Amino acid sequence: MSTKGKVIKCKAAVVWEAGKPFSIEEVEVAPPKAHEVRIQVMATSVCHTDALNIDPNFKNGVFPVIVGHECAGIVESIGPGVTNFKPGDKVIPFYTPQCKKCKFCLNPHTNFCGKLRDFKTPTADQKLMEDKTSRFTCKGKPVYHFMGVSSFSQYTVVSDVNLAKIHDDANLERVCLLGCGFSTGYGAAINTAKVTPGSTCAIFGLGGVGLSAVIGCKVAGASRIIVTDINNEKFTLAKALGATDCLNPRELDRPIQEVIIEMTNGGVDFAIECIGGYQHMRAALDSTSVGGGTCTLVGVKAGDKALDVSPEELIMGRTLNATLFGGWKSVDSVPKLVNDYMNKKFNLDLFVTHTLPFDKVNEAYDLMNQGKSIRTILTF
Amino acid sequence: MSTKGKVIKCKAAVVWEAGKPFSIEEVEVAPPKAHEVRIQVMATSVCHTDALNIDPNFKNGVFPVIVGHECAGIVESIGPGVTNFKPGDKVIPFYTPQCKKCKFCLNPHTNFCGKLRDFKTPTADQKLMEDKTSRFTCKGKPVYHFMGVSSFSQYTVVSDVNLAKIHDDANLERVCLLGCGFSTGYGAAINTAKVTPGSTCAIFGLGGVGLSAVIGCKVAGASRIIVTDINNEKFTLAKALGATDCLNPRELDRPIQEVIIEMTNGGVDFAIECIGGYQHMRAALDSTSVGGGTCTLVGVKAGDKALDVSPEELIMGRTLNATLFGGWKSVDSVPKLVNDYMNKKFNLDLFVTHTLPFDKVNEAYDLMNQGKSIRTILTF
Ligand SMILES: NC(=O)c1ccc[n+]([C@@H]2O[C@H](COP(=O)([O-])OP(=O)(O)OC[C@H]3O[C@@H](n4cnc5c(N)ncnc54)[C@H](O)[C@@H]3O)[C@@H](O)[C@H]2O)c1
Ligand SMILES: NC(=O)c1ccc[n+]([C@@H]2O[C@H](COP(=O)([O-])OP(=O)(O)OC[C@H]3O[C@@H](n4cnc5c(N)ncnc54)[C@H](O)[C@@H]3O)[C@@H](O)[C@H]2O)c1
Ligand SMILES: [Zn+2]
Ligand SMILES: [Zn+2]
Ligand SMILES: [Zn+2]
Ligand SMILES: [Zn+2]
Repeated sequence: MSTKGKVIKCKAAVVWEAGKPFSIEEVEVAPPKAHEVRIQVMATSVCHTDALNIDPNFKNGVFPVIVGHECAGIVESIGPGVTNFKPGDKVIPFYTPQCKKCKFCLNPHTNFCGKLRDFKTPTADQKLMEDKTSRFTCKGKPVYHFMGVSSFSQYTVVSDVNLAKIHDDANLERVCLLGCGFSTGYGAAINTAKVTPGSTCAIFGLGGVGLSAVIGCKVAGASRIIVTDINNEKFTLAKALGATDCLNPRELDRPIQEVIIEMTNGGVDFAIECIGGYQHMRAALDSTSVGGGTCTLVGVKAGDKALDVSPEELIMGRTLNATLFGGWKSVDSVPKLVNDYMNKKFNLDLFVTHTLPFDKVNEAYDLMNQGKSIRTILTF
Repeated sequence: MSTKGKVIKCKAAVVWEAGKPFSIEEVEVAPPKAHEVRIQVMATSVCHTDALNIDPNFKNGVFPVIVGHECAGIVESIGPGVTNFKPGDKVIPFYTPQCKKCKFCLNPHTNFCGKLRDFKTPTADQKLMEDKTSRFTCKGKPVYHFMGVSSFSQYTVVSDVNLAKIHDDANLERVCLLGCGFSTGYGAAINTAKVTPGSTCAIFGLGGVGLSAVIGCKVAGASRIIVTDINNEKFTLAKALGATDCLNPRELDRPIQEVIIEMTNGGVDFAIECIGGYQHMRAALDSTSVGGGTCTLVGVKAGDKALDVSPEELIMGRTLNATLFGGWKSVDSVPKLVNDYMNKKFNLDLFVTHTLPFDKVNEAYDLMNQGKSIRTILTF
């Protein structure tokens, strides 16, 4: 019997309050409205940005909420006006929409889309559908969406501009990583930092994002890739992916930037910050060579102070930028990245350290926060 | 009788203490040592960076000092090993050297040169010659150089990598402006911001630097050039140079960034800050469009706080950079800019609001600080 047009009852991980664990609940998922698509989520992974929004230090969190934004699934039903999708399509939803109509989408140099409204706190954006209502309810209460995706639910509803159809043969338990972490880190190196052949790079943090940045630097032809993490276990994989020098700041007797400046005789051409927080942004900028170095910020940390940049630091020839979803125009690019993965241009399998049933979402979350996993895939 | 190899006694404007006026003194200028050139300064203008270094708020000032860094002159004599210059050559010295040998000079993407040593406080750099001594003495005391130039003296000694020979017919009372202000603002738009045809720009401050940035935006094909200044008198010239909208922040009832965001439906593609100080850097970054806007810092203010940049502000697609001497490789580029001026590609004459005898340097300085001049040329 078709579920089309009907409310679906299913399992979801709801966070009722900031700082509280995920609670597995039965939720109701309303049918998609105009230009919306209801998806059965087949695999979702946990990304650090999920943690950000439910952190008590994050001022813009809203509750109850269903987070999760790195997933792949299958179209269950479509709302009125949806033309690019049909039930059964394999799809990846995105927190970065691509409406293809706004002035940003028409500009080839940015992947920002005018459908994003809350510029200042992107992770607090798209917490409701475009009509300012939610499709989720739990125990009679409306539940907030998260960054337009909410993948910690067996079914979710997304806008058709936040969604791409991908190859029919794609392995959803792997390509779900293209919904955020991999695409972000890989694109941060290729599209945002624009790493050049023969250059020197430093990657701060070797989570899913940082390791993907290592792959990006390698593909771009960097000749030296210095990586840092407080967990030495990450270094084996980093080296396999192309890292040339591994530094654990806890084993150094001086600030990491001093060590990197010395190793590179003045700093790196490209520094990519993939941890989040003041201290790491500072280290990344300091490690960037005067005279042409680019510091690219990827990490975001709730409640930490902003980076203090004096004009003198940049006047000596540095550029500071940051990446949103690796600079990819989501709908156009991710199906191609799925094909690249299927053609073995890069290996996502190495990133999946754990696969767990969805009910163990709290365990997956702890593994990430303890730095024990790279990516944990949750299946339903 | 030749002065070659002898100490020259001449007039210079010495600052004995932070915050004190210029004092016209007789100074001794020693002959050039190896790879140094002694120059007779024919015309010098006053730039805001001169003010920075003698400001009591600037922690790295050294005294007594001879400032001035925007000038043109004639070679008087050369030291051992100098091959590119001969007495009588018309020249422009620079605070940004181009040694053509270091890794930066060999990199086509930066105009930084490894001869600059004090990265953190560029204006306090090159206060002595490379052998760590001064060529100036006054009343028996050594006097510091300033940014490798010290043009507020009838004769000065500079390193041969801080100097370019220019066209024999160049008018030194005009092309002296290419030693800093014009080249900086013009290059900030063309080389650092990389203004694109059809783009929207905002220039903060209409001193010599800001007005030159207006010319740069116009030459680069910007379709809209919004300018701001607290002095309405600057707007006539700005409009003649290509400005399309003029804003005086003192006549607005809201922060200038709000007005610019509204006028441009979301912000400009390129914001160029040519005043200096926290408030203006903040306004420039805020005025930059999310999704691909570039904010370029040019102004520097002593003792003011750094710009606080949160990753979220940049993640939405902004780039922050800053210019050193407009991104020009000094020795290679300025002779070409001199030719461009002589071929009427741009009009420097419009910038010269005052011409005064050198003895009136304090008057020239006051005219600048009161915003009454664009550039004052001092002649000896
Ligand atoms: N800009 C974007 O579009 C975007 C997209 C995705 C994620 N992010 C952000 O990127 C960051 C990384 O995400 P992730 O999923 O890879 O996180 P993660 O938690 O998997 O990885 C972080 C890594 O940093 C390491 N680390 C922690 N403290 C360190 C220190 N002091 N020095 C060196 N290494 C340290 C950890 O051991 C871990 O390996 C997060 O801040 C996330 O919010 C941004
Ligand atoms: N990065 C470099 O290589 C470089 C080179 C030269 C100069 N600079 C710096 O550039 C800046 C500008 O130099 P300049 O010589 O053109 O200075 P200037 O004093 O001639 O011009 C500054 C202008 O800003 C205007 N202004 C002041 N307060 C304002 C406000 N609140 N709002 C709008 N406008 C305001 C003034 O009226 C004036 O027109 C200085 O900070 C200088 O140190 C940097
Ligand atoms: Zn769009
Ligand atoms: Zn993510
Ligand atoms: Zn050099
Ligand atoms: Zn100057």
